[in-house]
Amino acid sequence: MFTLKNHLEIRDNHLVISGMDTIELAEKYGTPLYVTNESRIIDNFSAYRKAFPDADIYYAAKANGSLAILRMLARQGAGADVFSYGELYMALLAGIPREKILFNGNSKTDFELQKAVETGVRVSVDSRDEMHTLSEIAQISGKTIEIAFRVNPDVSPRTHPKISTGLKTSKFGIPADEVVSAYREASGLSGISPCGIHCHIGSQILDTSPFTEATHKMMDLVGKITELGIKLKFVDMGSGLGIPYKKEETAPTPRDHADAILPVFKERTKALGISPKLILEPGRYIVGDTTILLTRVNTVKKAAKNFVGVDAGFNLLVRPTMYDSYHYAVVANKAGSEPEETYTIAGPICETGDVFAKDRMLPRVEKGDIIALLDAGAYGFSMSSQYNGRPRCAEVLVKDGIADIIRGREDIGDLIGKQKIPERLM
Amino acid sequence: MFTLKNHLEIRDNHLVISGMDTIELAEKYGTPLYVTNESRIIDNFSAYRKAFPDADIYYAAKANGSLAILRMLARQGAGADVFSYGELYMALLAGIPREKILFNGNSKTDFELQKAVETGVRVSVDSRDEMHTLSEIAQISGKTIEIAFRVNPDVSPRTHPKISTGLKTSKFGIPADEVVSAYREASGLSGISPCGIHCHIGSQILDTSPFTEATHKMMDLVGKITELGIKLKFVDMGSGLGIPYKKEETAPTPRDHADAILPVFKERTKALGISPKLILEPGRYIVGDTTILLTRVNTVKKAAKNFVGVDAGFNLLVRPTMYDSYHYAVVANKAGSEPEETYTIAGPICETGDVFAKDRMLPRVEKGDIIALLDAGAYGFSMSSQYNGRPRCAEVLVKDGIADIIRGREDIGDLIGKQKIPERLM
Repeated sequence: MFTLKNHLEIRDNHLVISGMDTIELAEKYGTPLYVTNESRIIDNFSAYRKAFPDADIYYAAKANGSLAILRMLARQGAGADVFSYGELYMALLAGIPREKILFNGNSKTDFELQKAVETGVRVSVDSRDEMHTLSEIAQISGKTIEIAFRVNPDVSPRTHPKISTGLKTSKFGIPADEVVSAYREASGLSGISPCGIHCHIGSQILDTSPFTEATHKMMDLVGKITELGIKLKFVDMGSGLGIPYKKEETAPTPRDHADAILPVFKERTKALGISPKLILEPGRYIVGDTTILLTRVNTVKKAAKNFVGVDAGFNLLVRPTMYDSYHYAVVANKAGSEPEETYTIAGPICETGDVFAKDRMLPRVEKGDIIALLDAGAYGFSMSSQYNGRPRCAEVLVKDGIADIIRGREDIGDLIGKQKIPERLM
Repeated sequence: MFTLKNHLEIRDNHLVISGMDTIELAEKYGTPLYVTNESRIIDNFSAYRKAFPDADIYYAAKANGSLAILRMLARQGAGADVFSYGELYMALLAGIPREKILFNGNSKTDFELQKAVETGVRVSVDSRDEMHTLSEIAQISGKTIEIAFRVNPDVSPRTHPKISTGLKTSKFGIPADEVVSAYREASGLSGISPCGIHCHIGSQILDTSPFTEATHKMMDLVGKITELGIKLKFVDMGSGLGIPYKKEETAPTPRDHADAILPVFKERTKALGISPKLILEPGRYIVGDTTILLTRVNTVKKAAKNFVGVDAGFNLLVRPTMYDSYHYAVVANKAGSEPEETYTIAGPICETGDVFAKDRMLPRVEKGDIIALLDAGAYGFSMSSQYNGRPRCAEVLVKDGIADIIRGREDIGDLIGKQKIPERLM
């Protein structure tokens, strides 16, 4: 038994995940197939809880909204950061208590705000416009909703521009210099009670210094809000901690994340004489490295490059196409074999950008081989589509040699089930 | 009545599509909502047919695989370019005859090749590997399948790199210098009959000269293949004709496309003394400008920019996020009003890249307004996902004041219907 990367192992040249042979999984459940290691999720969540013993950990459901994963985290005491009515519903269904759910979002519908009021979760308010709408909706229902404002701290997270969420020019949050007056105005409105503050600076962050910078900026605001006489119950610093996608890459741990935030947070709250709850919203760190995507080789073609055509496409894992992301690739039935040739792994979608891995040294690849794309747990299935008329694949959860389907494979019925041809065209 | 762009009109400050008031559509069917003008599809298809009177037009189903649209085009005599078993199934279901279907794809599964053999459609073979697999599968079924080879002509279409499909380094097709030997080998195999040749150089092409270059290269190959004694029944030049997304932009027409291809095609086939059928595979041109996406304004925020938060996100229209594409935006309930301010239109997805339109001069935008994103018919709904826990929206087909739902709105059930929580987590 040879350890490959994180929790994955190699046995008799086969890639093994939580005691399960991936080739047997591919045979039994078919490909493409997402496979998630249950224990690894628990380990990752525990690492966050240990690093932040006094904080609440609200899992960012958008990273992977699978009901089974939400249930698993609910049992560990996690809360949830939700971004839509759909995510709110699924978090509640999975057993996450409403007291530990924050409804985020830069553009919520009135229907979503109504549902937030009905279920009684806290709301992170993104604009004054939304503040007034929520106040009105809550008053009609005769309720008072606890809110935070989403602050735009203007901090650069040094990550991909599409996921840098805390820059001044991003669509998220209230500019830092307008935050205090927003709290003043909110405290005069009925139906809402400002009792928290929230920011989120980005995703896949590999340098923790922006977290420290953001904490300073947030605590400056906390001080000013406290001076207004508003007692903040929580400070939500979001998350965005990155994970190492490349084998040789190193990434900060939750402990490093804590070192970047906690000293500042503790010192400044002590100086203010207040004790708000710290909240973190990790997503990618909890699920990213727990999951692999298994895909079968349909064809190997020698052209300008050696192309390996597989049966998964960017409709199932869009990160490489959309963000030029790197995913480590293993030939799962030849794991541990010596690399022999350079291959480019491409999906079956009719776009040149449908390439999972470029110019990778791999053992000799043949039709029928199974390739595992690693670290596909975050923003993998959650972003999947049926593009090119492709039903979406199944998801399996494994633990110590046991496998359970947590999402069934779609078929043609799932492509046409909602469609109708008008009678005039019959 | 004032004509806005293409087939869209303005009546009493409301945007009108095929006689239907878009604001009434938004009220009746809810938002977000895709709305397609049936007559415009027929017009676009007719324009291609007129420009290429002797050719077969195979609609590229990936652009918009709606059954109603496929049915409509089937009734016009269209064939289909399909890229998966799902698209093959839907094309047949919609009534497109198997004789007019070409099964394309760089990475087909054995299952898909089996289905191609069973249904008896033609196959565009992407590699020698696939040629051998198809030959074996067809022999087992006791059939002979007509094939083309997909040629990589190494022509630059001068478009977005992610959709430049005919460059030497792209994953598609057989390099031009290996094509003749592939035909020689194929003609000696049982179960397959090489009788066509196929290329496709890219998408959203606005300069037709690469089409001429590709035709020359393809006809060079046709000449060499004819010398082998192989009688080609068809030459499929793909398509990729672009459309004008910006109001001031001009784009070539099908007539320009014909002018770039037909003289070369006619002269060279005549010189060779052969008369293969010419096939074109337009997708975007047929459906792109026929469809608008209606989305409601949830919130307007003055921050570093004026942000308009709408209820559609990149889960419903990914082109601006993925390809930096431009879509013309109209405030549908204030159409024709004077532009007053600069706005950036953002969706509700938790990513900074979820922006549909940057810095557009629009009439004063308020909560509740309906914004129409134009030219959303190609690669719009077909690439949609449920990211961020968002059920997908409905699609409506309109014609001369009549509207029919062609795809029902999804709900929470469509997010959780395939999911299971293992008993051990209950």
